[in-house]
This record gives sequence, structure tokens and C-alpha cells, in this order.
Amino acid sequence: MATPDLGTDADAIPTREEKDLLGVMPVPRNAYYGIQTQRAVENFHLSGVPLAHYPKLVIALAMVKQAAAEANHELGYLDATRLGAIRYGCQVLIAGEHHDQFVVDMIQGGAGTSTNMNANEVIANLALEHLGHAKGDYAHLHPNNHVNMAQSTNDAYPTAIRLGLLLGHDDLLTSLARLRDAMADKGTAFADVLKMGRTQLQDAVPMTLGQEFNAFATTLGEDLGHLEAQIPRLLCEVNLGGTAIGTGINSDPRYQRLAVERLGAISGQPLVPAQDLIEATSDMGAFVLFSGMLKRLAVKLSKICNDLRLLSSGPRAGFNEINLPPRQPGSSIMPGKVNPVIPEAVNQVAFEVIGNDLALTMAAEGGQLQLNVMEPLIAYKLFDSIRLLTRAMHMLREHCIDGITANEAHCREMVERSIGLVTALNPHIGYDNATRIAKQALASGRGVLELVLEENLLDATELADILRPENMIAPRLAPLRI
Amino acid sequence: MATPDLGTDADAIPTREEKDLLGVMPVPRNAYYGIQTQRAVENFHLSGVPLAHYPKLVIALAMVKQAAAEANHELGYLDATRLGAIRYGCQVLIAGEHHDQFVVDMIQGGAGTSTNMNANEVIANLALEHLGHAKGDYAHLHPNNHVNMAQSTNDAYPTAIRLGLLLGHDDLLTSLARLRDAMADKGTAFADVLKMGRTQLQDAVPMTLGQEFNAFATTLGEDLGHLEAQIPRLLCEVNLGGTAIGTGINSDPRYQRLAVERLGAISGQPLVPAQDLIEATSDMGAFVLFSGMLKRLAVKLSKICNDLRLLSSGPRAGFNEINLPPRQPGSSIMPGKVNPVIPEAVNQVAFEVIGNDLALTMAAEGGQLQLNVMEPLIAYKLFDSIRLLTRAMHMLREHCIDGITANEAHCREMVERSIGLVTALNPHIGYDNATRIAKQALASGRGVLELVLEENLLDATELADILRPENMIAPRLAPLRI
Amino acid sequence: MATPDLGTDADAIPTREEKDLLGVMPVPRNAYYGIQTQRAVENFHLSGVPLAHYPKLVIALAMVKQAAAEANHELGYLDATRLGAIRYGCQVLIAGEHHDQFVVDMIQGGAGTSTNMNANEVIANLALEHLGHAKGDYAHLHPNNHVNMAQSTNDAYPTAIRLGLLLGHDDLLTSLARLRDAMADKGTAFADVLKMGRTQLQDAVPMTLGQEFNAFATTLGEDLGHLEAQIPRLLCEVNLGGTAIGTGINSDPRYQRLAVERLGAISGQPLVPAQDLIEATSDMGAFVLFSGMLKRLAVKLSKICNDLRLLSSGPRAGFNEINLPPRQPGSSIMPGKVNPVIPEAVNQVAFEVIGNDLALTMAAEGGQLQLNVMEPLIAYKLFDSIRLLTRAMHMLREHCIDGITANEAHCREMVERSIGLVTALNPHIGYDNATRIAKQALASGRGVLELVLEENLLDATELADILRPENMIAPRLAPLRI
Amino acid sequence: MATPDLGTDADAIPTREEKDLLGVMPVPRNAYYGIQTQRAVENFHLSGVPLAHYPKLVIALAMVKQAAAEANHELGYLDATRLGAIRYGCQVLIAGEHHDQFVVDMIQGGAGTSTNMNANEVIANLALEHLGHAKGDYAHLHPNNHVNMAQSTNDAYPTAIRLGLLLGHDDLLTSLARLRDAMADKGTAFADVLKMGRTQLQDAVPMTLGQEFNAFATTLGEDLGHLEAQIPRLLCEVNLGGTAIGTGINSDPRYQRLAVERLGAISGQPLVPAQDLIEATSDMGAFVLFSGMLKRLAVKLSKICNDLRLLSSGPRAGFNEINLPPRQPGSSIMPGKVNPVIPEAVNQVAFEVIGNDLALTMAAEGGQLQLNVMEPLIAYKLFDSIRLLTRAMHMLREHCIDGITANEAHCREMVERSIGLVTALNPHIGYDNATRIAKQALASGRGVLELVLEENLLDATELADILRPENMIAPRLAPLRI
Repeated sequence: MATPDLGTDADAIPTREEKDLLGVMPVPRNAYYGIQTQRAVENFHLSGVPLAHYPKLVIALAMVKQAAAEANHELGYLDATRLGAIRYGCQVLIAGEHHDQFVVDMIQGGAGTSTNMNANEVIANLALEHLGHAKGDYAHLHPNNHVNMAQSTNDAYPTAIRLGLLLGHDDLLTSLARLRDAMADKGTAFADVLKMGRTQLQDAVPMTLGQEFNAFATTLGEDLGHLEAQIPRLLCEVNLGGTAIGTGINSDPRYQRLAVERLGAISGQPLVPAQDLIEATSDMGAFVLFSGMLKRLAVKLSKICNDLRLLSSGPRAGFNEINLPPRQPGSSIMPGKVNPVIPEAVNQVAFEVIGNDLALTMAAEGGQLQLNVMEPLIAYKLFDSIRLLTRAMHMLREHCIDGITANEAHCREMVERSIGLVTALNPHIGYDNATRIAKQALASGRGVLELVLEENLLDATELADILRPENMIAPRLAPLRI
Repeated sequence: MATPDLGTDADAIPTREEKDLLGVMPVPRNAYYGIQTQRAVENFHLSGVPLAHYPKLVIALAMVKQAAAEANHELGYLDATRLGAIRYGCQVLIAGEHHDQFVVDMIQGGAGTSTNMNANEVIANLALEHLGHAKGDYAHLHPNNHVNMAQSTNDAYPTAIRLGLLLGHDDLLTSLARLRDAMADKGTAFADVLKMGRTQLQDAVPMTLGQEFNAFATTLGEDLGHLEAQIPRLLCEVNLGGTAIGTGINSDPRYQRLAVERLGAISGQPLVPAQDLIEATSDMGAFVLFSGMLKRLAVKLSKICNDLRLLSSGPRAGFNEINLPPRQPGSSIMPGKVNPVIPEAVNQVAFEVIGNDLALTMAAEGGQLQLNVMEPLIAYKLFDSIRLLTRAMHMLREHCIDGITANEAHCREMVERSIGLVTALNPHIGYDNATRIAKQALASGRGVLELVLEENLLDATELADILRPENMIAPRLAPLRI
Repeated sequence: MATPDLGTDADAIPTREEKDLLGVMPVPRNAYYGIQTQRAVENFHLSGVPLAHYPKLVIALAMVKQAAAEANHELGYLDATRLGAIRYGCQVLIAGEHHDQFVVDMIQGGAGTSTNMNANEVIANLALEHLGHAKGDYAHLHPNNHVNMAQSTNDAYPTAIRLGLLLGHDDLLTSLARLRDAMADKGTAFADVLKMGRTQLQDAVPMTLGQEFNAFATTLGEDLGHLEAQIPRLLCEVNLGGTAIGTGINSDPRYQRLAVERLGAISGQPLVPAQDLIEATSDMGAFVLFSGMLKRLAVKLSKICNDLRLLSSGPRAGFNEINLPPRQPGSSIMPGKVNPVIPEAVNQVAFEVIGNDLALTMAAEGGQLQLNVMEPLIAYKLFDSIRLLTRAMHMLREHCIDGITANEAHCREMVERSIGLVTALNPHIGYDNATRIAKQALASGRGVLELVLEENLLDATELADILRPENMIAPRLAPLRI
Repeated sequence: MATPDLGTDADAIPTREEKDLLGVMPVPRNAYYGIQTQRAVENFHLSGVPLAHYPKLVIALAMVKQAAAEANHELGYLDATRLGAIRYGCQVLIAGEHHDQFVVDMIQGGAGTSTNMNANEVIANLALEHLGHAKGDYAHLHPNNHVNMAQSTNDAYPTAIRLGLLLGHDDLLTSLARLRDAMADKGTAFADVLKMGRTQLQDAVPMTLGQEFNAFATTLGEDLGHLEAQIPRLLCEVNLGGTAIGTGINSDPRYQRLAVERLGAISGQPLVPAQDLIEATSDMGAFVLFSGMLKRLAVKLSKICNDLRLLSSGPRAGFNEINLPPRQPGSSIMPGKVNPVIPEAVNQVAFEVIGNDLALTMAAEGGQLQLNVMEPLIAYKLFDSIRLLTRAMHMLREHCIDGITANEAHCREMVERSIGLVTALNPHIGYDNATRIAKQALASGRGVLELVLEENLLDATELADILRPENMIAPRLAPLRI
């Protein structure tokens, strides 16, 4: 979990010297990253989570660099040799290699400059080696002049974040779709399990356990549909080509269109150039909305897990309608106790995601003038929330939902013993009788059905007919008598 | 601002007696509301904000009641006389009268039952009077049996909230559209005001003040488009017809379709019936997303107002690029001081909206099983956020944006004195010269331009050409020399 | 609930003219407030909650003005006539009169200048009338020159907020103390009600219902103690005397000590002057901590109310251990249903308070340089949270806790039927037997006790002894056998 | 950064078999942890942050186990051999060894059972090896029966969290104290740098830069004092001895006092036993308050860093009062640009801490009945916030504050050019003259001083005297003339 401790024992490992505007400093000789990355590692020792933790972000950075190089070549600013070498470096990263060279902390000042330079330096040195030069021999191919050509952090970095999120959201959607399907499967399996519905934790009217799980499937399916429809809409507009503040200063007027086109081709994502580059450079609105969607999903998952824990409460002094599969011994002191550990963990992930949304919101609000310098935190929290939710839904499905069983007899018994049953009898025995029977049942502890039979309000055949699940869990054809 | 203090001095005002399941109690004789409203007023003395505070919610409740009555009549459950009377009561409320009878606190237990009963009782008594009966003479027309027929709070209330939000969001969108237009007007007015762009609060490269205000217009326009497209999609699906828990128990199978159809006709909103009524009864997901959108708008407004305050900082020891219209004396101790009070107020509204979003999120997470009992808070926070944002944007436009003027000469002087100007010279004098000149300017306090002229790197004509705004604030045709 | 609509129909009501730096404008002739208040009302039409909503804030403002006047008189800057008149105006407000003249919205720009001027103007006009002059005849006594003498909003306003909170927190503490006592009373009343304790919603080991309510009392008592100890410590340091930015510019060096001393005497609060007035002028840290304490209380109340709702769930298909007093009919469709409406309302108040804490936190973070301009929102949210919590605890005690009854027989039956009982038998029958019996009970649905008797592991006398509450709900003297 | 991937390649590494209530499963042969840890690793693949990430938590767990063993020995339940072996295992962990065996994810269900069992298993196996037995040979010494003797997760785990926080907060306080001192040093260094104070970003009245940095020192010093005073008070009350739900079931009545006493001795912390163990088992109030204090610190740091970024804005088109030490090149496209990267990173840490506080708050609110199952998230977020703040303050001091320099001449020039200067002249030239001069200066762009001289309102000597810093930055002896 530790950040590579590159600065403190620098003497102990062989180094090479590199130079930037602030002067000369040693860099580990074998490192593909360079001096600016090294400075950032020494500056920012905060979260302990390096860029490498989010492979899709690294891949997206490489794709941006490749697209820029291809555009610059096409416009005549970058020669074929350097293009080839840069493209090689990018491809290596896209293939998943050398990600351990992305060592900068996810929390960093500089609005992502360190992340951008980490990418520029690693790609430059991969390219240099590919051309037969030594690492750090930037006279042949330079991190800034060639890899970062026609880019500023302020356009390359936000573009990479958007692209990284687009590349990564498939896993989220897959995990969500499979969870929804697992819920729907239980909806089918429990279609005939009659149980009490509850409002405000009070016994209400009957329903089936299948309806309850189908509702879980429906509510997750809504999020799936929303995310599928909205994510591309939100994230596909990129500000590549805006350079420093969106004016595109010092860039070729043809560059923006070309670079975005190339990036779309490389990534397979339907990217489009931002219309107002000034606005696109500083605006974090898409991220706020995306995080809001993740928060909604978190809220739904938390509510579902709260329900699962309620429904499985007991076994004797609780609701005891369903059994969650045991995953680990629940207590060292209480023999036989098994706990709903999987839903509990999902609840905590949900709270974490909601906390992430707040951190991101404050970061978005903290933007000033032509840039939002808090963007590294925004990226971090989004990638973190996506990964947490993806894992949590996978866990919930595999370790919990798939193995849930129903206590069918107990569920039906609760219905038959319930006072809420009287609601179903309401149209048949009248509101006055129903109210009187309900009070009598509550006071005496007796059942509604036996009281109705005792008073000859209905006979056993009628009762049996009314209590058929299909007559209780949906609108009936019988006219209302009010 | 005070809640009508109906309970404590009940002896002092003439009363009538009403009765419900819990017994008999006095109600102010002239009140259109009844016993259950009275109980709620005594139970919930919390926010001090009564339902009447949000007229669109009251109107939406009346529309739901009218739609249900029409459907019940069409299905043969409600006679024409009662339909006519109920419709009369609803129309009176829709016309904006008697809203002061909606006295229940916005924060209430019971998942909205008190709100629903407040509506049922007021409409019943308006209807009774219309029929020539005394208030409270429910034998002729009953709040529950007739006004609430075929409904539960659990479907009527969420439907009314959705409808109320739909009815109310026009004001929000209008306020937003006009603010965006005001920003765009300033974008046009300031199109020729050259100024320094800033990243990370450091001088970056030139842009125009018009570009800056156009970016404000763009970012607000994006929210306008998003809200226009998403709000109907989110809110038009209503769960009317689900009754207690979404199973539609005790309702006519034809009722759901019919009631929603009538409600659509009455309200003019494109309402559709929910597909999964079980899910729709408890799910608050649409509200979470809607609040997330309002939060995004709040974040953007806060960022814009932070910028306005920065740009108008000074007048001598700050940025001093723009002047906000003075709205009130700024200090009793400092002669002549005028403060950016309008943007400051918008910032605070934004924080309030973000706090509302959190309260709403926790309420949404707190739903259990077949219902979310925290829905009153959810409704309250949404109506509150919409109203606050609507008013804040109106205020911002009228009292601030429309009157902003630019300090054009000062802005241009800052560009000419800036070191960031050297970036524009970069392609013409080379990176090495540019860096050297930049350092020299910073150390000596002199200007970049005079140093360039002094060294004969460029002549005055060339400089003048490069510094033409159109050459600095957009990609140029001149090839890059790297 | 409406803000007095003073600006729009100004023509309709008789006015007088007043003048300030920005020019001349009409003010309602009968108003005690003046032009700057009028401007603020027109500028800030946001929350609809006027200053008058929080009487303790109005009183505190008056006390600050009186203290300043007395200090200024003592130092020779204010003559006896004006002192007498100002003191009269302050006393009128402290007595609770004319609070309706505090019409400015709680959300306002200007860092409280409008609030401060609202106080200055009302006091000036009350004083003028007292001296026999007309309202607005400021030549005799001026809102700025005399009422606000030696003050800036930046010291008078924060001082008034702190004082207002100190004056108001007694109600909060009283409400909390009485709720704690009500819980303790139930702890005593239910001391012999044996029930199952639950961890993770699973049956754990026995306890008494009295222990459970005593724990509620304890946890609330901890907050009471903490608030009593910390609030004075946090709020008694005031920055009166700092004037504009804490340097005390243009004030007499003797003024700070004298004014704070007078304010302490007038208010009866142990106020002390801030040591570092520069820091004290902009720092909102005390408010952040105070809000954090209110948030903790909200979290505890919400947890307790969640528990009350769980324990009263049912009546048949839930825990059904306690009965909450019915407060209103629960359903129009389900005869006899009564809901836990009071705890539900408390939950929502808790979420509101947590949302307030967030809004306040962002406002505190938004301070810049020598001032925090977001202080009006901070004050608003604190006064709002205190009032909401005070009312909610009052409601919870009176309408819920005091009337709770226990289902003692059901509670004991749950213990006897529980498998968790085996934990108590553990030391007597050994862990292996205990585990075997637990599994057998779960599989067969039979009771632990009958199985133990059937196998002759213990006899009925031994069992009865072990199951005596005093042996199950506290550490025993019997040695552990492991 | 990766969690040891113990489950998936289990075949590839040599294993041993272990058994628990759920059955048999393989564990890596060399692992000191056992089957329950293994199950938890497979269950919870969420944050990727293992327990080992927080050494103070691991050490605290070991101390709790040692204390319990010593108490159990003293009471006659644990023999000397096993005590010695367990103590050995604990000491090894306290010394910092084998922390890599704490592999469970910080986010976990089960209310900490997996953490507790991870500790029990590692200590048991360390003890077994010490006794000459093989790992997993639990017949000799058992994780549950001996290491966990007389404990439940529900008392051992919260006790360890509190202790771990106590052990870890020294680093936080040291980092804070050093930052405060660095601020105070700058306060001294800049004592004579006269500058404009600003309220609402508008020029106000003069102060010194030293006063500004001293205010930073003061505000941080307040937090230091508060944390030093409150943390022990909040965290020293532990619930060790409460076992399952606080009733102390199956424990020796002498155990609680003894175990806490031993733990105090081992840890050197002033621990005291909780008075109400039922309450202490489920209450998270101390953590909510502690997090609230960390949030306050975060808010203050964020405000300070916002100020530092404002004060160093420029160099030409900003405030430009101070220079932050350059830490890394600021731009690849803008020569010479250096950014305030260190304060920017601190801002982001602050937002993260505020987000953590929210996640923790929701977790605290999510407790139910006799336990809070969300405690693992609470622990995680607290340890995370402490570490982030500690590192951020270290970074801020070392990489930023210590190297700040002042632009003294520019600061003074801003004062002399300011219109705010007129406030200081107010008592000498009168309010009318002051206002007139202020307006004239603003309109003409000229200086206040030259206008005053031109009009012979004061002569040069008088002006020089008034403008002496000591006369402008503190209350003066000269009487006010109003």
C-alpha cells in the first residue's frame, strides 16, 4: 500500500540527473519518469494512492498523448520518427505495462500538471529507449516539446479524466446489470411467497416476496438505463485543443478537430470537441452530475441492504422472512450466530460514495476564473466511487443475493396472523365491521380470520378465495363497496 | 412567519367538534381543515413553514384529488353530485384561494398522511359548503370515503409532489434562462475588452472579458438544457393507483390508467403511469437526481459569484477589472466602501442548496421496505431549493449582472504589463529568449515588451501586430516554431 | 409566513424620505427601520425568514448597542441625553417589543451589514421618538454616528450572534434535560422487562428494556454535559472593539475592555474580550464546533428514533416490544393502523440539522482574508438547528416517550423462544453442547430450553435460576468454564 | 497498493487447512492469520486498504489482547504458559513486526469481527510458534478460547479503535504545533510589513502582514489547545468488559476494572472504564465529535490556503503581496509560471476530510439497537483524516510557509495608493472631507494623500505621523472626533 519511497533514500539507489526550470536533481536511474514526477512525489505525500491505482486513467493519458502526436504529425509539426517512438510508448502503456511508473499521489496541487508530466516523462523515456537512446536524453525527444506538443495540462488532463471514466464505466454497468438480474431471478423464484408488506415498519397489506425483489430489480434497472444513456452524453465532450485557458493560444487552428478525431479513433469512444473551450476548461459540471448519479445508486443500494437486513432479522425475535447465506462465523461468544455481513459492507460503501460526492462538490465549487485547480481530487473521488460501487455490487450479488432463501411458511403465517389482512376483507365485510374486528384482534391477540368466521361475516370458502394471493396482491375486478 | 397557533388558544375561538379513530376534538369553527389536520398541527411544531408556503404543492394536491374523483365517477363509484362538489373544491384551490388552510408543517411524520388529509379535509369542507351543508357535516361527503376514494397517501402524496415540482420548475427555468441571456449580453458588450486570463490565480495568457462572460452564459445554458430535457423524464412517471404499497389493493383495475390520464389532462403535464408500482411507491431516486441537478446549478452559480467578487476586488489593491453596481453602503466606518453584496448572497444560497441536497439524500437513504416515510422532508427541501435558486438568479441578474461595467483601460494595462504576454511572443522569439525575458522582467519589475524592444528581438510594428486581440485570444494561423 | 412586501407597493403606503451614500429613497412612514434596511429588503428576497424569526438574535443586537453606547458615554464620546435615548430603544427591544421591525432576510450579502444597520436604524428611531423627534430626523441622533459609534458590523455583528446563541441555548438544554429524564423514567419503569438484545439486527443475548432506555438517557446525558461545559467556553470570547478588521482602527484604546464589560453586565453572560482581534474577526471555528455538537445530538436522536420505530414495529409481523402512544390515524385505507409519526418527524429534523451543518461548514470555509462574508448563513443555520432540535426533543418527550408502554409478556416470550439464550447456558453445559443445541433448535424450530431439559443437561430448577434476569443481564460471580 | 490476492491463487501457494463453524478451508501455510481472516479477505474486496495501513490500530489491538490475557490470568482463567505466549505475540506486534499479516479490508461487514479475529489469529499463531507448535495447531492455544477470552468484538474492537486514535494523535498535534510555530515565525518576520487589510475582497484599512500571519498562528493554536484538551476526554472511556452487548454476560464481575487497568498500564494512556456499558457499546458520539474537530481544522487550513493563494496571486495582475517558494515548474506552455501547488493540495485534503466526516456521520446514524455495525467505516475515516491532515500540515509548513517572502515595497505602495487610507485620516479631517476625498480619488484615479496635501487639509509632517504603522494598526490614543 505504501507509496514508493523514492525521495528519502535517493542516495542508496543509482540515479541519473535531470534538469528543469527550478534546477537539477537526481532521479532513480531505472525510472521511466523524470524530474518533474520526482518533484511531485516529494511534494505530495498525502493519500498514498498513486495514479497507477486507476489503470483506466493511465491508459486514457496514453491515448491522449498518442492522439496529440498523430495530429501534430499530420499538421507537420512532429516528424515520423518521433511520432513512431511516442506511439510506441503510448501503446506500451495502453497494453497495461509500466503502470508502476505512475507514482504521483492522486491528491496533488497544480491542477494535474504533475499527472500530465508523469505521463509525458514516462512516454518520452519509453520512446527514447525504443529509439536506442538512454533515459533522460531528452535532446532527441522531449517530454514537453514533443510528447506534450500543442497541449497544456489544462486541456490534456481533463480530457484524459473524461476518457478514463468512459473506459472504466463498463465494469460498473456490468456489475449493476448482473445485480439487477440476480434480483429479478429472486423475484421469479419468490413469486408465490405471500408475505406482509410494511409501511412505516408497521404491518400493512399482503404482497409477495417476489414483488419485493422485482422492485429491487426495477429500481436498479432504472439506474442502469439512466447511466447508460447519460454517461456518454456527459463525458464525450472534451476540451482537447484549448491549451492554457481555452483560447487555444499558440496552437494550430486545425489542431482541435484533428486531435479529438484521432482520440476518438484510438479509444473507440464517441468523443466530440467542446464548443466553448473557455467554459470547458474550467467547468466541472459534468463530474458533479456524474457523481450525483453514483450517489443515487449508492442511496438505492443502501436502502436495499437495509431492507435485506430487516427481512433477515431474527431468527426468532425478528422478521425472519429470508435467510442470507452465511459468510463467516458471527460471534466468538454467541454460538451459532451468523450476521448479514455482506449488506453491512455495502451500506458502508454507500456512505463512502456519498462522502466522496461531497468532497467532489466542494472541489467543484472551489474552481476559480479560468481553471479548477481541484480537479485531481475530483478525478480521484470519481474513480474511487466507481471502483467501490463496482466491487460492492459484485460482492452483494455473488456472496449474498444469489444464495438468499425464503422462509415461506413463516411469511404466510405472518400474513394469516396479521391484522392488516382485514384491509383485504374491507370490501366484503364493510368498513365498520373491519375496524371493529381489527380492534378486537389487537386487544385479544386473536386472529382476524377466526374472528370473522366466529361472527359468520364470511364463510371459510369465501375467506379462502379472498386470501388467494392473486386476489390480494393486485387490483381486483370485484367492485368496491364503500 | 409564525405557524397559526391553533391548538393552544382553542378555547378563545369558536370551535366545532370532529371525530376520528382516536376520538373527538375541537377544530376552529371557521376552518376548512378538520380534525386530522388539527392533530398534525399539534403534533408537528417544527420548521414553522406550513404547506401553504409552496402554492404549487397545494395546487398539485387539488389536481390529484380532482383527477381521482373524475376517475371514480367514470368507474361508477362516485355520484355526479359529489363529483361536482369535489371538483368545485379543487378548482377553488387551483385558482389560488384558501391556501391559508394548508397549515401543517412541511416537516411531519406519517409519510405525508397529514398533508394528504389536510387536502382531503379542506376539499371536503369546501365541497360541503358548496352543497349547502355545514363544515364538518361529513355524512354528506367524507374526506376519506369520497375525496380520498381509491387513494392512499402512499400514492396520492408522491404524485402530488412530482406534479407540484413540474408545475413549479418553469419559474426556475425562466430565471435561469434570463440570467444566461444577461451573461451573454455582457459577453457581447465586453467582446473587445482584452484582459489577462488566470489559472491557479496566477497570470496566464490574454483573453477577452467577453469570452469570460460568454463562458458563464455557456455553463448556465448547459444546465438549462439539461434541466429542460431531464425534469419531465424524471418526474412524469407517477404512482397514482398503487394505493397502500403499490399492489393496488382494493382498487379497480381500470382505475390507475384512468386517474393518471385525467390528471394529465387537468394539469397539462405529460404524466405517465409507473410500470412497477411497488418500486414506484418507495423509490426516491428521481428526487435524488433532481436535487443533484439543482446542486450542480448551485455549484456553478457559486463559482461564478466567486469570480465576480475576485474580478471586482479592489478598487486599488485588487484585480479591479469590473465594477459591480453599488446596491447599498458598504461600511459605516470606511467612507466610500461598496461591497459585492449580491454575489455574496448567491454564494450563501448555493451553500443552502447543497445542504438541502444532503438532508434530502439522507432522507432518501432512510426509506424502509414498502415506503419512504421521510418523503415530507424530501419534498420540503426540493421546493425550498427551487425557490431559493429562482430568487437568487433573479436577484443576481437584476441587481448585479445587468449593471456590470468594465475597467477596460486597466484590463489592457494589466495585459501589457504582464509577463504572461511572453507566451504570445514565444513562437516569434523562441522559447529560450522567452524564458530569459520572463525572468528578467520578474526580477527587474520591468515590462516584457520594453525588454523585447530594447534587445531588438522584435520591432514595434511586429509587436503591435502580435498584440492585436484577435491574434492572442484564439488559435493563430502562424505555424508553431518549437 | 411572507416577508413584508415593503418595496413593491411603496406608493400605496405613506412614506418618508431618507438618504444615504447611494442617494434618496422612500421608507414606510411608520417604519422604525430606515433606508439601509429598506435597501436590504429590496436586495435580498431569498429565504423569506426575517431576522425577527429569532428573537434572541434581536435581543442580542440590542444589548450590543446598549453596551457600546454606555462605553462611549463613559469615555466621553456620547452625551447623556443620547445615551438615555439609545438605552431606551435597546430596552424596548430587549423587552420583546417591535421585533417586527427586523425585516431583513436571514440570508444576505454584506457580512451582516444589513442586520447591523437594521438594528442601528430601529434603535435610532425608537430613541428619536423617545426624545420627541420624528422618525428619520437623524440630525439629533444618527444610526451610524451614534448608535453604531465605535463599532463596525465586523465586530458588532459576530458579537451579537455569539450572545444570541448564548441567550438561546438554555431552551435547548432544558429540552434535552427533560428528554433525558423522560428516558430515565422509562428506564426505571421497564427495569424488570426482560427482552432480547440484538446486534446487527440478529438475536443476541438477554437484557432488560430498562437497560435499553437507560442507555438512551445516558447517551443524551453525555451530550447535555458536553454542551453545558463547552458552549460558554466556545462562545464567550467576543471581538467587540475590533472595528473594521480587528486592528481597532479609530477606536479608543480603552473601549474594547469597557464595552465587553458592559455587555457582560447587561446580558448576564460571562463574556471575555478576544485576545487576537484580527483572528477573531474572521474566524468561524467556534461556530463549526458548535454545529458539530448539534450534529452529534441530531445523530443520537435519529438513532434513538430508529430504535423506537424498530422496537414498536408490528404489531404482528414485527418486533412489537413497545407501544408508542397513538397520535393520529395512520391510514385511510388500512383500518386500525397507527404509525410512529413522532419519531419519524424527529428523524427528518435530524437530517435537516445535518444538512445545516454542511451549509455552515461551506460558509465557514468560504471566508477570505480579514472577514467571513458568509456569516449571515452561519448564524441562520445555527439558530435554525437549535430551534428545530429544541422543538423536536420537546415533541418527542411529550408526544411519544412519556406514553410508551411495554409488551412485557411478548418480550419475555421472545427471550424464552430465542436461541441466543444458549449463550447464558454456555458456562453450565459447555460450548460443544451449546453449539449442538443451538443448531438443533434452529433446524427444528424448537426451543433451547425444552431441548436442554429433554437431554437432562440441566434440570428445571437450575434453568429457572440461570434465567433469573439478574443472572443474565450483568456479569455473574460463577466462574467461567472454558 | 494491492491487497494480497490470497484467495484466487490459493492452489499455487502451499496451504494448511483450518476449520470454523462454516466448515474447512485452506489458508496460506506461512500465514499467521487463519481461516476467519481468510474468509474476510474473500468476502471484502472493497477499499483495497488493509488494516496494516494504520499501524497504530494494529498496535492497539495487540495491547487490548495483552491486557485481556493478563486480566484473565490474574483471575485464574488463563494459565501462565499461555499468558506468556500470548504476551509474546502481542509484544511482537507492538514492536511493529508482522503488521503485513493484518490483511482484512478496512471496509468490512460484521462490526469489526473480522478485524478482531485477524488479531486473535495472528497472535495465536505467533504464540503457538513461540511455544514450539505449528501454526494452526489451536488445540494448544486457541484464537477464540484464549486470545479472545472474556471479550467480544463488541467491546474489544471499539476499545482498540479508541486506543489507536489516542496513540496516533500525537503526530497530528506535533504537525499542528509546528505549523502554528511556523506561522508565528512569519508573524514576527513580517511585523513591519504594512499592507492593506481587506474585507469582502474590497480594500479596507491598513494592517501588517505580521498581524495576518499571527492570526493564522492564533487560529491554529486554538485548535491545538482544543484537541489537546478534548481528545483524551473523548476517547479515554473504553467499553472493555461489556462483552456482547454491554451486559457483561459470561464475564467475571472483577474483569472489567482489571482489564482496563492493565490496558492503561500497557499503553500509558489514561483509560477509564465506561459507566454505562450498554450505552458505550453502541454509541459513536465521541467519534462524531472528534471528526467534527478534525473538520474544523480542515476548514481553517482550507481558509488559510485560500488566503495564501490570494495573497500570492499575480505576479502582475494579482495581489502579489507574498511569494510562495517555487516547488515545481508550473506550465509547459507559459514560460516562468510557478503555481501555489502546496496550498492547492491542502485545500483538496481539507475537502477529503470534510467528505470523510459526512461518511462517518452517516455511519454513526446507521447504528441500530445494541450495536453500530458501521464502526469499521468510522474507524477507517478517522484514521484516514488524521493521517491526511498530519501529512498536509507537514507539507504546508516545510514546502511552503517556511519559505514565504514578502513584497514589502509593493505592500506599502498599495497602502499609500489606497482609498481606504482615508479611514485613518477620518478623525483628523472629518467625515465629510473624508468622503469627498474618497470619491474624488476613485473618480480621478489619484491618490488620497496627494489630494489631502493639495487641499492643505493636513501638512506632510502630520500625514507622515498618521501613516506611521503603529498609528494605523491598533487603537490610538487620539480622541475620536465625530
